[in-house]
Amino acid sequence: MSASNNHLVIMAGGVGSRLWPISSEQMPKQFIDVLGCGRSLLQLTLDRFKGIVTEENTWVVTSERYAPIVHEQLPELPHRNILKEPFPRNTAPCIAYASWKIKSINPKANIVVTPSDHIVMDTDEFRNVIASSLKFAGESDSIVTLGMQPTRPDTGYGYIQLDMTASCPRNKNIYRVDAFHEKPDLETAQMYLADNNYFWNAGIFIWNVNTIVNALRIYANSISNEFEKLLDIYGTPQEQSEVNKAYAACERISIDYAVLERADEIFCYPASFGWSDLGTWKALHESARQDSQGNSIVGNVDVYETANCIIRMPEKERVIVQGLNGYIVAEKDGSLLICKLTEEQRIREFSGAAPGNK
Amino acid sequence: MSASNNHLVIMAGGVGSRLWPISSEQMPKQFIDVLGCGRSLLQLTLDRFKGIVTEENTWVVTSERYAPIVHEQLPELPHRNILKEPFPRNTAPCIAYASWKIKSINPKANIVVTPSDHIVMDTDEFRNVIASSLKFAGESDSIVTLGMQPTRPDTGYGYIQLDMTASCPRNKNIYRVDAFHEKPDLETAQMYLADNNYFWNAGIFIWNVNTIVNALRIYANSISNEFEKLLDIYGTPQEQSEVNKAYAACERISIDYAVLERADEIFCYPASFGWSDLGTWKALHESARQDSQGNSIVGNVDVYETANCIIRMPEKERVIVQGLNGYIVAEKDGSLLICKLTEEQRIREFSGAAPGNK
Repeated sequence: MSASNNHLVIMAGGVGSRLWPISSEQMPKQFIDVLGCGRSLLQLTLDRFKGIVTEENTWVVTSERYAPIVHEQLPELPHRNILKEPFPRNTAPCIAYASWKIKSINPKANIVVTPSDHIVMDTDEFRNVIASSLKFAGESDSIVTLGMQPTRPDTGYGYIQLDMTASCPRNKNIYRVDAFHEKPDLETAQMYLADNNYFWNAGIFIWNVNTIVNALRIYANSISNEFEKLLDIYGTPQEQSEVNKAYAACERISIDYAVLERADEIFCYPASFGWSDLGTWKALHESARQDSQGNSIVGNVDVYETANCIIRMPEKERVIVQGLNGYIVAEKDGSLLICKLTEEQRIREFSGAAPGNK
Repeated sequence: MSASNNHLVIMAGGVGSRLWPISSEQMPKQFIDVLGCGRSLLQLTLDRFKGIVTEENTWVVTSERYAPIVHEQLPELPHRNILKEPFPRNTAPCIAYASWKIKSINPKANIVVTPSDHIVMDTDEFRNVIASSLKFAGESDSIVTLGMQPTRPDTGYGYIQLDMTASCPRNKNIYRVDAFHEKPDLETAQMYLADNNYFWNAGIFIWNVNTIVNALRIYANSISNEFEKLLDIYGTPQEQSEVNKAYAACERISIDYAVLERADEIFCYPASFGWSDLGTWKALHESARQDSQGNSIVGNVDVYETANCIIRMPEKERVIVQGLNGYIVAEKDGSLLICKLTEEQRIREFSGAAPGNK
């Protein structure tokens, strides 16, 4: 495996509404320093692949409106490596576009596809897993997903069920996938946790470019066709307008539905590197640095008798919080949320509501 | 009593720090619509004297920095009726200035002196009390204060002890003052409440101009001298510079200490017109309009499972509050306070503190 064949596709088109108000359509969470560490989730994503993939081989797929933010946050990336979607069509068209584009440049590419808004705690272990998976994908016609060792019966993640009876001869850490499962109810999640062959689907995929384009041809032919026919167009001035037409012709479908759940030969690398999709305020709270009282605070904030709170306030605002336990306090762009962490599933209801006492 | 002899002095130089952050040195509470009724406390103060005192005879004493705010909020007031203090010297110099200034215009004036940041619920009763007291002061050489019937053992007010054995022959509602008492501890306040001859000192005074200037000559001679010697200066271009010199020569002292507690003949009109000095968030909460859950809300705020809170947010901010009971949530000029109502006595500590968990 030559490192120069390694390519990275970062999917950064999402509109994170669950972390309202700090994440919004104007500035979704991948572009925000939600951990308060000085780097956005997108920047952290790029960081953790340094040494595995060159900047030349790193591709960010995002919407046209977010492309300037990506430029600004990742100045080291060549402008041409930012692929612009005219409108969101979920992950299958996104991956098809990036895959055919990469194939037009390097038919021997090995590709990692990753979301842009997740976090990884143990970066060293993550790099080991990615490097090992890339090597495996380069030597076989295999679709590899990453499965996260569950630590609690989480009902917010999809699960991957593995056949743990035998690992792959080429890589003892990789197992065949028996089935993908949607987000379960609590009882089912507890059963998954009790068994030892269910893993959280991290939405990270590793394959060589021929494996994925062939899988797309077989399982998502109409989408694949739209981007295969642009092989001579990629890199020309016509690329964007032709890609825009291709997107208009594509259905809105995830790579999971379009390919992974339909294909026979899917593999999974079960791993433990401290992963979270930060899909909830609770997950963000648990992943962020906390003070001795269990508060995760970003901003110019004084707290008194306050514990287990996640506070995200604009730096320019002076904030005093007294006597709260287990709350979200967050402000962004003129919207302030004060809400119990246990009630965060109602944030969509809150953020769309009309004034009054409910 | 001719209505044209009635004068009103509104003291509007205060720097309310207890209602931080909505009240601040830049914009103290008298200039703020703290009740959410569309009028500032200063405007409400002027409103409640309409029909008793003309605008021509209404004087606002304030600091130079607040004079433009007074101009803006009370456009009906002649500019010359805004008296500007070069720096705060408490109420005795303020009242001496206004009294000598008014005497230079109308030696037969009857004067009401009032704070600008209190509220009155029953305006009709208030007008009756003021009109009756003005008539009494016009016909006698008496200093009259207003005493508020206490409804709870409040430790935040000064108390006036009355001799209730006989009312004045000229006005059956007015009694002689036995003593003034500082803010008591709770036990003393309970004793005051159990007796029926203790009343809250509302800081509202009624007298004719000769009574007060004579009292100032006797009990606060050095202050009185400074303003008496400007009798020929008032209304001339030199007034402000000479007044500034007079203030520089004055000690910082309240009219209560300088005159009322020293004079022998002080009278009090005990009254009940729903009064509050809004000196605390709790007092403001109790005085403001509340929803069915006991919340007093100003701003673009949605509340859920929230009760007994006072919320004061800028109109331009969209606010969601969930799951709070008995809290202050207030923002002004880039400062946000979230604090239990029971802890509001610590606001000065909070507002001056450095960041961290205390």
